Amino acid sequence: MSTSVFASRPSKHELEEGLTFAPKFDADGLIVCITTEVHTGDILMVAYMNEEALRLTLETSVAHYWSRSRGSLWRKGDTSGQVQTVVEIRTDCDQDAILLKVEAGGDGKACHTGRRSCFYRRVVRDDGVAALEFTSD
Amino acid sequence: MSTSVFASRPSKHELEEGLTFAPKFDADGLIVCITTEVHTGDILMVAYMNEEALRLTLETSVAHYWSRSRGSLWRKGDTSGQVQTVVEIRTDCDQDAILLKVEAGGDGKACHTGRRSCFYRRVVRDDGVAALEFTSD
Repeated sequence: MSTSVFASRPSKHELEEGLTFAPKFDADGLIVCITTEVHTGDILMVAYMNEEALRLTLETSVAHYWSRSRGSLWRKGDTSGQVQTVVEIRTDCDQDAILLKVEAGGDGKACHTGRRSCFYRRVVRDDGVAALEFTSD
Repeated sequence: MSTSVFASRPSKHELEEGLTFAPKFDADGLIVCITTEVHTGDILMVAYMNEEALRLTLETSVAHYWSRSRGSLWRKGDTSGQVQTVVEIRTDCDQDAILLKVEAGGDGKACHTGRRSCFYRRVVRDDGVAALEFTSD
């Protein structure tokens, strides 16, 4: 097993109340990441990071992810120009999620569909059946 | 295999551009859910839903999750009083994440540590080593 650049998991108390950063990667070696636009607070996307992506994000202040569909490291914006400059990184109480606050570069369209955010549809109930409708924001 | 109350996965185009709600549950039957406070937009927590939790959330407009640690359905607030009233539900482009916008009930402290949000620490680099520091918000 390779050595992690991050701390190994400490006690529950240290995990929740301490200053040790010990992110929990799942069985696939991934941690979920929520990315928001730092000025508006809008949620742009949800993606995953492996340890290398998280390390590179910390080192370079540019968002890196792990593409589950392509099975490869993904420096956001390398092909689209929408590089995300990281202003703040947070983790949650049990350190199994990452929150990135970023400035979105390029045309600011974080979603591969050409939209600013991936969350462009709301779920509604239509005759008891759940369906989607597009939002204006 | 039990029948899902949600649509089976359609084409990539319908998934991204259509009105069919076809949430993707992972190999463990879960989908990740980001919960925000509807008035401030603050991210309160990240949790998981199984199909039943998502169905109940849609039917009752009260947030239900699946507790991975306890292995059980979890109606947020049943023990703490911090019931979350759902104002809007969104999904993302490929429908493998849920966004809940809620009004937080009780004392509004969504995190089990007694804080309003689970994201109360930022990651900082201290002598090249990643560590945490508490935030004021």
